[in-house]
Amino acid sequence: MNTPRLDPHTLLAQIRALGDIGAAAEGGRTRIALTDSEKAGRDRLVAWMRELDLDIRVDAIGNIFGILPGETPWQEAAPLMMGSHIDTVGNAGALDGCYGVLAALAVQRAYREAGIVPRRAIIAAAFTNEEGVRYQPDMMGSLVYAGGLDLDSALNAVGTDGSRLGDELVRIGYAGEMAPGAIVPREYLELHIEQGPVLEAENLQIGVVTGVQGISWQRLSIRGTANHAGTTPTRLRHDAGYAAAAIAAFLRDEVVAAHPDSTLATVGSLELHPNLINVIARQADMTVDMRDPDEGRLQEAEQRLQDFIAAIAEREGVEISSERLARFEPVPFDDALQDTIEATAAELGLSHRRMVSGAGHDAQMMARIAPTAMIFVPSHKGISHNPREHTDDAQLIQGAEVLLTVVGKRLAAE
Amino acid sequence: MNTPRLDPHTLLAQIRALGDIGAAAEGGRTRIALTDSEKAGRDRLVAWMRELDLDIRVDAIGNIFGILPGETPWQEAAPLMMGSHIDTVGNAGALDGCYGVLAALAVQRAYREAGIVPRRAIIAAAFTNEEGVRYQPDMMGSLVYAGGLDLDSALNAVGTDGSRLGDELVRIGYAGEMAPGAIVPREYLELHIEQGPVLEAENLQIGVVTGVQGISWQRLSIRGTANHAGTTPTRLRHDAGYAAAAIAAFLRDEVVAAHPDSTLATVGSLELHPNLINVIARQADMTVDMRDPDEGRLQEAEQRLQDFIAAIAEREGVEISSERLARFEPVPFDDALQDTIEATAAELGLSHRRMVSGAGHDAQMMARIAPTAMIFVPSHKGISHNPREHTDDAQLIQGAEVLLTVVGKRLAAE
Repeated sequence: MNTPRLDPHTLLAQIRALGDIGAAAEGGRTRIALTDSEKAGRDRLVAWMRELDLDIRVDAIGNIFGILPGETPWQEAAPLMMGSHIDTVGNAGALDGCYGVLAALAVQRAYREAGIVPRRAIIAAAFTNEEGVRYQPDMMGSLVYAGGLDLDSALNAVGTDGSRLGDELVRIGYAGEMAPGAIVPREYLELHIEQGPVLEAENLQIGVVTGVQGISWQRLSIRGTANHAGTTPTRLRHDAGYAAAAIAAFLRDEVVAAHPDSTLATVGSLELHPNLINVIARQADMTVDMRDPDEGRLQEAEQRLQDFIAAIAEREGVEISSERLARFEPVPFDDALQDTIEATAAELGLSHRRMVSGAGHDAQMMARIAPTAMIFVPSHKGISHNPREHTDDAQLIQGAEVLLTVVGKRLAAE
Repeated sequence: MNTPRLDPHTLLAQIRALGDIGAAAEGGRTRIALTDSEKAGRDRLVAWMRELDLDIRVDAIGNIFGILPGETPWQEAAPLMMGSHIDTVGNAGALDGCYGVLAALAVQRAYREAGIVPRRAIIAAAFTNEEGVRYQPDMMGSLVYAGGLDLDSALNAVGTDGSRLGDELVRIGYAGEMAPGAIVPREYLELHIEQGPVLEAENLQIGVVTGVQGISWQRLSIRGTANHAGTTPTRLRHDAGYAAAAIAAFLRDEVVAAHPDSTLATVGSLELHPNLINVIARQADMTVDMRDPDEGRLQEAEQRLQDFIAAIAEREGVEISSERLARFEPVPFDDALQDTIEATAAELGLSHRRMVSGAGHDAQMMARIAPTAMIFVPSHKGISHNPREHTDDAQLIQGAEVLLTVVGKRLAAE
C-alpha cells in the first residue's frame, strides 16, 4: 500500500503564491480580514481546495472548510481537523497563519496523491479574522465556531473603517450557509511559526506546544502635579513620571523575577505630559502586558501590581486609575496529542522541546470543543507581523512532515 | 533727615501695567526677547526711569541701566546695582523678573521722594534675554555683561525664527553704545519670586538665597530590540523601555535618596518606540535633569548615573548613548550679603529661611564680577512660567521692604 508523502515543492510554491496576494513593492503584504485583497486570498485557497477535489463548506462567519472524505462520512465519525488563518495584519510576512492552512492542504494532497482514503475525514480550515486588525475581537472566526461568541454579535461588529462585518462578508461572497460549529472534530491540530525567538536561540527544530499562556492587559493613568524640576524639593513632588518608571521597574525586578521562566511583563507604551526636560510630569499613561501559562501565577502578578500601585500612589501622592483592556485565561493543550507530536519529532530525528505559545491562536478557541495541540517551527529572530518574518524552507518542510506523521498516527489509532 | 520709604501703590501699579503689555485675553502675557511686545515693555520701563530722572544707559547687548547718581560719581565709587529682567516666556505670569526690576525702581523712587542723595549711585538693571526662549543661551545679557560670553557671539545668535539677535536689537532701537561690563558694581542684589513651593509650604515670608544650584542636563538614547511581548522570554529581551524605567527609578530611589535635601533628579521627558502595548520597545529617548547646590554631590550623582547606565546596558543587552545638553556649576552667593538680608528680615519681623535657588537667574552671572545675593518671596503653589503665577501683594511689598532696607544698610556701611 502506498504511503502519504509530502510534496515540499507545492507547499512552498503555495506559500509564496498566497504571499503575493496583497503584496506591496517593499516586500510586505496586507490582507486584512474581509477586504478585497483577503477575498482574493480566499478565492485562491478555495481554488487549491477544488484542485484536491475537497468538499468545500463555508459557515455563516466565513470560516472555510475543505473536507477530504474518509471511509466513514464526517457526520458519522468525527473528523480530524487542521487549520489556521489567511488574513494578515498590515505589511505582514507570508507565514503567520498561511503556513498552517497550506500545510493542512499539503497533508490532504499527500493522501490524494497516494490514492489513500483515510478512515476518517481530514479537514483543512481557514478561520475568519484571526488578526483582529479591522474587527474586534481577534480570533473571531474560531471563537464563534467554538461557541464563545454568538454569531449575531460577530456579524454586527463594526470595523475601524465603520463597516459592518456581516455586510462585508456578503460583499465578498463568503457569508456561507453552514452553522458555525456544525462539524465537531475529534482533534484539532495547528502548525504555526513560533513568532518568538526560543527555538532559534536554542537551535531546535520543533516546538511541542503545551498551551497558550494567559494574558492580562491594563492601561494605567497616573495623575500627579506638574512643577519646576529645579525648584520643587523631592518631598513636595507628585511625579507621575517617577511613579510610572517605578511601576515598570517593579514589574521586571520583582514580579517577573519571582517566576522568570513563566511570568512575562512588558510596558510597551508610556507617555508623559507635558514631556519637557525641566517639568515634573503631570500625567503618565502606560500599558501593562502580563502573561503566564499558569492562571494562579497570572493572578498573583496582577495582585502584586495592584498592591504596588496602591503603595506608590500613597507614597508619591499621585492618583492612579487602571482600566482592563483584555484578559484571557491560559489554555492548556491535550496531553495525548502533545505526546504524539513529541514522539513523532523524535522519530523523525528532529530536535524539539515543549514550550508555551506566547501569542494567541485559533487553536486556543478550538480547544473548547476538541482535543487540540499545536506544532511550532522556528521564527528567525522571533520576528513576525513584519515583512522580515522568516523561517527556512527546510524548517517549514520539517514542520509539515511532523504534521503529516501525526495525522497518520491519529487516523491509524482507531 | 528724611528716611526713604517704599511707595507700595506705585510698585504694584507698575507691575500690573508692565504685565498688561503683551497680554492675551486668557490672562497670560508674552514678551519674548527683542520682539515688538518686549520693545513696548522696554519703552515703558525707560519712561518710568525718566520719571525718576535717572541717567539711562543701554549697552551693546541691550541691557538697560537706570542710574540714580550718588554723592560720589559711579566712575569713582563702585555703585550698588539691583536688577533682573523683563522678557518673558510664552504665556507667562507678570512677576518673574519684572518684580525685581520694578522693585529696584521702587528703591530708587524712595530715595528720590525722600530727597536723599545716596553716598554711592544706585542702579536698576534690566538684562536682555534672560529666558532664552528665542535665542540661546538663556541669561544671555547678564552673561555677556559679566564677561562669560563674548559680545559678537551673542549678537550673532540665531533665533528660533531665523533672526539674528544683533539685527533685532537694532530694529527695536536697543543696540546701545555702552560696553557690557563697563559699570562694575560693588554689590548686586536681585529680588525675585521663588518659582518653587518651599516658602509657601513652610509658611515663610522671605527666602535668603544661598546660591544657585548646579545643573546637569543629559539626553539618553537607549537602543534595544523590538520583539513580541508574548513570545519573547525575558532572558532574550533587549527592552529599551525597561532600561529607561530602571534608570528613572534608580535616580530617585538611589541617587536622590542618598542626599534627599540636596540632590534633585527629574525624568520629565520619556518616549518609547514603537510605543505599542504588545511590542517590546526598540528605542527609548529620555532626559535627565539633575541639580545640586554642591558641585561634589552633583558630580557624584553624574558618576552614579554613568555607572548605572553601563551596568543596565550590559545586563539588558541594550546600547545607551548620552548627550550633555547643559552643565552649570553651583554658584554660591556672598556670605556678608546673606547675613545682611537675614538680619533685615528678622528686624522687619518677617519669617525667613536660607534656601538655594532651584532656577537660574541673572544673579548667578553677576556673581562673577561682584558680591551678589538674592531675596525670594513665596510663589503660590510654586507655579511660574504660567498665567497662574501668583504672589500676594502683601508678600511682594514685604520683599521690596527687605530690599530697600538692605540697600540702606549697604550704603551706610562705608
